[in-house]
Amino acid sequence: MRILVGNHIDPSIRERGDMRAWTQRLFWFARPGDLLVLCCEPDEAFLDYALAHTGVPRSKLTILAAPAGAWDDRLLDPASLTSPAFLKTARAALDAAGGPGAVSEVFALWPSASVARFAAALDIAHRFPGAAFFAQGGGEIGNNKANFRALAAAAGVPILPGRVCRSHAEAIDATRELLETSGSGAVVVKQAHNGAGVGNQLLVRDPQLAVDHVGARHLHHLTPGETGIAAYWEQRWAWASGDGRWPVVIETFAPGADAVYSEYYAAATGTWPTEMGRLLYVGRRLSHQVVPLDEVSDPVRTALLDGGTRLAETYRAFGYRGHLSADALVLSDQSVVFTEVNAQVSGSLHIYQQVARRVVDVAAAPRRQVVEYHVPPSWMVPDFATFLAALDETGLAYDPHTRTGVIVSMPAIPLAPGAPAQFVFCIAYDPATGYDHAFARLGERFQTLPATAVDASEHVGYAAVSFSS
Amino acid sequence: MRILVGNHIDPSIRERGDMRAWTQRLFWFARPGDLLVLCCEPDEAFLDYALAHTGVPRSKLTILAAPAGAWDDRLLDPASLTSPAFLKTARAALDAAGGPGAVSEVFALWPSASVARFAAALDIAHRFPGAAFFAQGGGEIGNNKANFRALAAAAGVPILPGRVCRSHAEAIDATRELLETSGSGAVVVKQAHNGAGVGNQLLVRDPQLAVDHVGARHLHHLTPGETGIAAYWEQRWAWASGDGRWPVVIETFAPGADAVYSEYYAAATGTWPTEMGRLLYVGRRLSHQVVPLDEVSDPVRTALLDGGTRLAETYRAFGYRGHLSADALVLSDQSVVFTEVNAQVSGSLHIYQQVARRVVDVAAAPRRQVVEYHVPPSWMVPDFATFLAALDETGLAYDPHTRTGVIVSMPAIPLAPGAPAQFVFCIAYDPATGYDHAFARLGERFQTLPATAVDASEHVGYAAVSFSS
Repeated sequence: MRILVGNHIDPSIRERGDMRAWTQRLFWFARPGDLLVLCCEPDEAFLDYALAHTGVPRSKLTILAAPAGAWDDRLLDPASLTSPAFLKTARAALDAAGGPGAVSEVFALWPSASVARFAAALDIAHRFPGAAFFAQGGGEIGNNKANFRALAAAAGVPILPGRVCRSHAEAIDATRELLETSGSGAVVVKQAHNGAGVGNQLLVRDPQLAVDHVGARHLHHLTPGETGIAAYWEQRWAWASGDGRWPVVIETFAPGADAVYSEYYAAATGTWPTEMGRLLYVGRRLSHQVVPLDEVSDPVRTALLDGGTRLAETYRAFGYRGHLSADALVLSDQSVVFTEVNAQVSGSLHIYQQVARRVVDVAAAPRRQVVEYHVPPSWMVPDFATFLAALDETGLAYDPHTRTGVIVSMPAIPLAPGAPAQFVFCIAYDPATGYDHAFARLGERFQTLPATAVDASEHVGYAAVSFSS
Repeated sequence: MRILVGNHIDPSIRERGDMRAWTQRLFWFARPGDLLVLCCEPDEAFLDYALAHTGVPRSKLTILAAPAGAWDDRLLDPASLTSPAFLKTARAALDAAGGPGAVSEVFALWPSASVARFAAALDIAHRFPGAAFFAQGGGEIGNNKANFRALAAAAGVPILPGRVCRSHAEAIDATRELLETSGSGAVVVKQAHNGAGVGNQLLVRDPQLAVDHVGARHLHHLTPGETGIAAYWEQRWAWASGDGRWPVVIETFAPGADAVYSEYYAAATGTWPTEMGRLLYVGRRLSHQVVPLDEVSDPVRTALLDGGTRLAETYRAFGYRGHLSADALVLSDQSVVFTEVNAQVSGSLHIYQQVARRVVDVAAAPRRQVVEYHVPPSWMVPDFATFLAALDETGLAYDPHTRTGVIVSMPAIPLAPGAPAQFVFCIAYDPATGYDHAFARLGERFQTLPATAVDASEHVGYAAVSFSS
């Protein structure tokens, strides 16, 4: 058996609002006998739905909700995992399943020290890869975009020109210097800890620059000259640095680049690649991602794999263990530059490892491909049942015989009463025909706002969340 | 020729008050032809004094003061190194000495990104080991006591039981947990970025516990029970975390331990040990240190060397290049545990590499040893000339024939007009007779306050500084 912990980045590093839905993608990873830990009671409708796809009987799983802590059941309070009452419950569940000796692995969506302490309290620390490192806060080291730049530079992996800034004054200097040398007259500002472009802001001199496809939720048009730079940082240093808590990354902006990634597993014995894929942004939001990676040349594929491998080896060398994702851009000259490493279970692992390989088996003949979409902010999906009903009516529900169709990846829990549900869903498709048709048909059903009604920065359509740790 | 940069930790990470004196220990490293960069004009009296010991003619050195920046000449403003005017000056100095091709090494007391940019601007980035890593803020990664614990744990190097905390609530939990399991009923709280014990606070339940010899400037007696822990953190979380900027380390306190260190050089090709030594604390301040390390058993020496080597290899693996120091404790059971790594030029390098080996040649027969003392806060030394005069009168000045006597390590610049000078000085001595006599004679001359008049935490004697980066 394994213990799967449906957690997220420690709230003491970055406090997400409500991770109940996103962390239940954990169900995709479950195998018979596993013990799952969530921050909340499972969404039974989604649980049944996911298990129907993976073929795991509900009766073969033990699912525990950790006690509500400082964030009620919206976030997993790291301290809850080792509360005496929960440890008692977890020990009883373990004993019923053969005791600590029966645990083959502790798997957590985020490599928190609290998971290491939980494993130690259950006498299974040796089943949590990297436990000693994570117990001392190592998870933070591997998930920091500033650290990434230094580590990548040391490993000789290509990155964009940029700087890591620790003060407002350094940020002004760096912005001026990078704008001078950047051909695009634009730079990207990145928070050290955030995901899916939500912590990125694009600073542009030219209002005509095409930026819709870029992973940067926020956009700022610089007024000309030094004043514009100073005015920006006066306004945004506190946001970018988390009130001075984190270094801020500033990089030159590469127009017209494609966003791709290469994932790895880092074990004590070495690293190996697990999958490559592509991220697509619309309105500067992460819109969808495609696995396996297609439509790249062999040299691009090789550069992505080689650079990613060097990064994975670097992260392994300082102690990281587990899954990691190296994000990169394919520039218009077909060179590959790396932009960050997420040393955690990414928002892609469930897609390629579980949906694409386990459920769809994309490599079998005829070959299939999987895209995972965020419900766009211009759609109005009231709830999970309505969405499933629409899939049935349109014939878009996943069909195991054709190995095509829609598979919802997570529960659809509205963030507020009456608010539309936001979630992600996969479309398995034939590469020869693509996924546009299926997506368009769902759009006909659920789009209620023109796409232009959504402000990419400020979500004036409906409130939007990002699904990443 | 080499370029030696007399800098210190970037003020954007930790703003030291006045580093003019301490950074001039740079003179000990100078060799004929070198170009030295300081934050201020050199202290000519000390410069002549140091060069008289190393035998380097003043005329063979070029010494540049970087333009005064945000901290006047008290601290090196990292931005000053790449100001156009200073780059012009530096380029002219380089051209006079044969151009960029004549530079064999860029050496900096602290691995700042600004030094990497300075080297790049002079076309000698390849002469600054680790330039790409440091240019992206890598210096911060290797000089953080929280990162150290994770990296050491991953490397399997022994550390004390402890935790890395990112929030007030985690700190309370960790303190409670560690006090429960600590035999001493005491824990040490450490700021992530500080030195010489100034960022450490000892929390003790038992007011009778012997703590005078411990490297923890601050002391707090916990009131009994949970309330005492909560009250402490209410008061000190902001101090310990730098207003939330840094993780806080909490470790169990090991009574009666000896503080030792092992230093290394990390190069692209590998690491090698450079020296081991001992730190001695009095009144919880760093009082003096002794090189080479003596009075340890062979197993202790082996454990120190082996653990330090593993740490050096880990730091090298993620990109650090240059000198580094692994600090450790020898516990009362003679086991060795590591407490931090300073991946920078330590406060020991000038002692062992320059004073002990180059000036005194301690390994020659008859063998010598070197201790470096901080002027105790109970002494009143008005200025450098008075101290040198006292050395002459007492016959304690360093004598190249006997290879014993006092060598002052840095300029004696009073921190305020009329304040006593605080500095460090070495005593070269015969191991058979020791250094107590020489130190006592100087004390007879300069001690003006009873040692008990000095509050170890709050410096109610005279204001005291710590000399580390």
